[in-house]
Amino acid sequence: MIKNDLFLKALKGEIVERPPVWMMRQAGRYLPEFMALRDKYDFFTRCQTPELAAEITVQPIRRYGMDAAILFSDILVVPQAMNIEVQMKPNFGPYLPNPVRDQKGVDAVMVPDVDVELGYVMKAIKVTKQLLNDEIPLIGFAGSPWTILCYVVQGQGSKSFDMAKGFCFTQPKAAHELLQKITDTTIAYLKAKVKAGVDVVQIFDSWGGMLSPVDYQEFSWKYINQIIEALKDEVPVIAFGKGCWFALHEMAKSNASALGIDWTITAQNARYLTGGNITLQGNFDPARLLSPPAEIKRMVTQMINEFGKDKYIVNLGHGILPNIPLENAKAFIDAVKEYKG
Amino acid sequence: MIKNDLFLKALKGEIVERPPVWMMRQAGRYLPEFMALRDKYDFFTRCQTPELAAEITVQPIRRYGMDAAILFSDILVVPQAMNIEVQMKPNFGPYLPNPVRDQKGVDAVMVPDVDVELGYVMKAIKVTKQLLNDEIPLIGFAGSPWTILCYVVQGQGSKSFDMAKGFCFTQPKAAHELLQKITDTTIAYLKAKVKAGVDVVQIFDSWGGMLSPVDYQEFSWKYINQIIEALKDEVPVIAFGKGCWFALHEMAKSNASALGIDWTITAQNARYLTGGNITLQGNFDPARLLSPPAEIKRMVTQMINEFGKDKYIVNLGHGILPNIPLENAKAFIDAVKEYKG
Repeated sequence: MIKNDLFLKALKGEIVERPPVWMMRQAGRYLPEFMALRDKYDFFTRCQTPELAAEITVQPIRRYGMDAAILFSDILVVPQAMNIEVQMKPNFGPYLPNPVRDQKGVDAVMVPDVDVELGYVMKAIKVTKQLLNDEIPLIGFAGSPWTILCYVVQGQGSKSFDMAKGFCFTQPKAAHELLQKITDTTIAYLKAKVKAGVDVVQIFDSWGGMLSPVDYQEFSWKYINQIIEALKDEVPVIAFGKGCWFALHEMAKSNASALGIDWTITAQNARYLTGGNITLQGNFDPARLLSPPAEIKRMVTQMINEFGKDKYIVNLGHGILPNIPLENAKAFIDAVKEYKG
Repeated sequence: MIKNDLFLKALKGEIVERPPVWMMRQAGRYLPEFMALRDKYDFFTRCQTPELAAEITVQPIRRYGMDAAILFSDILVVPQAMNIEVQMKPNFGPYLPNPVRDQKGVDAVMVPDVDVELGYVMKAIKVTKQLLNDEIPLIGFAGSPWTILCYVVQGQGSKSFDMAKGFCFTQPKAAHELLQKITDTTIAYLKAKVKAGVDVVQIFDSWGGMLSPVDYQEFSWKYINQIIEALKDEVPVIAFGKGCWFALHEMAKSNASALGIDWTITAQNARYLTGGNITLQGNFDPARLLSPPAEIKRMVTQMINEFGKDKYIVNLGHGILPNIPLENAKAFIDAVKEYKG
């Protein structure tokens, strides 16, 4: 049904002629066509207008021909739908004017009807699927409950999310109630996305690496795993945890179809820690896309050789940076397409 | 000569009745007596006035009786001495108005006479040693060359130090020249500190974890190791790399007396990756000091049990946070002093 099924085959662990490739945040600020729309429409207008979100989603595909598209959206549309105000401030990032920091705050958080509150995402998926015309699969995504809690409690980005951690460590009961509400919403949200047409879902645990191994199990992985269990029979699930190398052994035992990894782990270590069987996705240092194109191509080829072409999805170790030259992004994608095993 | 030699014994790997304890950033904003001086004197005045730096250094010792003191200073006094302007902006952090971003910038960086440019540090050490009266050892510190480069190139703090990485990846020759100048200065600086009286030195690689394992070797560890080699015959050297779990195996082969580790690594993993012989220092999650005191004590005792009482120095996994209650810091220190193996 999907013409280029490299990505789906890699997620099933099937033999491929070359690994599939896409880039986290591939629909992003390094693209001039993205910047043109960004100048005209503010952040949430872009997310909430199905035609705009769909157009932004396919922009990088038109330019570079990745093997998967990922729906343009933001992890913070979920708390927004849960009755928590989220603003996106230019040159600042997300700002939540009424952060949740006690039981009363948790009580006020709603588990919404996602088809009502996030119906615009489902419409965007349908428009995108038409644009993609079954050429490549479409990925839908959500933040991990812990990562969403980080923003909801801290109220903005942070280097260490100390307030979020302090909330969990001093009010664990309230924290777990909040995490469960986010989890329930996320499961309903991702199921609705699947119904609307996404072929794969990815969970982004951007801030899991802020937690100790013990706290990670309690405050993050437990909830991610609920999401995996709820979705696994519908579509392949990819779990990406930045800085979560210490949990890979546990994560590999789950029903996730693939694990995303950041660039601080060697291929050998990643295969070792995950037991060698699960598909891995990653893990080129996003800042290494600043290297000259010829060097990028050499490093990508070496990375594929190290991970092996099978059970592997080429990606960055985190989102692409805004200051990456177009020809460098092209070198990254082309190196994979030109790969001869 | 030093009355409480627990810390020095642990650094030599000798058997101790209980592990020594100190806290990174123990002379810091969680202490009311520190805040009183902070209200009166700006940051560099505190660093550059020997009596103030000495007083701040011993404040936490008076209150809690740690087993080691660490000289109050900042890693950025080194680039400041190298002819690079460094400002400390309130509610912002370090700001370097003229960041180094090309060969010309590197050429303008001086390797100074540290006794002239950083003489105030040596004076502070002498005053501190008098105040400490040989009760406990005094630690002197420096940032790793890579971590200093991060600030010198980026010009301020950052979540990912992309400009610093971009500089290394696009202008590696200039980057290595800058790293070598910082390394040469740091070696001279730490040797002068030893001459002035510090008993131990610690190298802080706060941003090593931003690099891939291969890039870490090239842009960070190579230079840290030069420093270790230059100092190892004079005093014990502790190398602390935040997020550098992936390099622990290599670091353990060096002549460092101990390795500092952050809280994302279990004791078992840390011992395994370092081969079980080198002294380890760490690794309580600084945010876990927000837990109730009884819980802190339980967790600290468990941490010591997991690392083992020998070849171990109890510490946090990074600096203490400003919002830690005094009784919580006390619970951390007391738990170690009350430890019965």
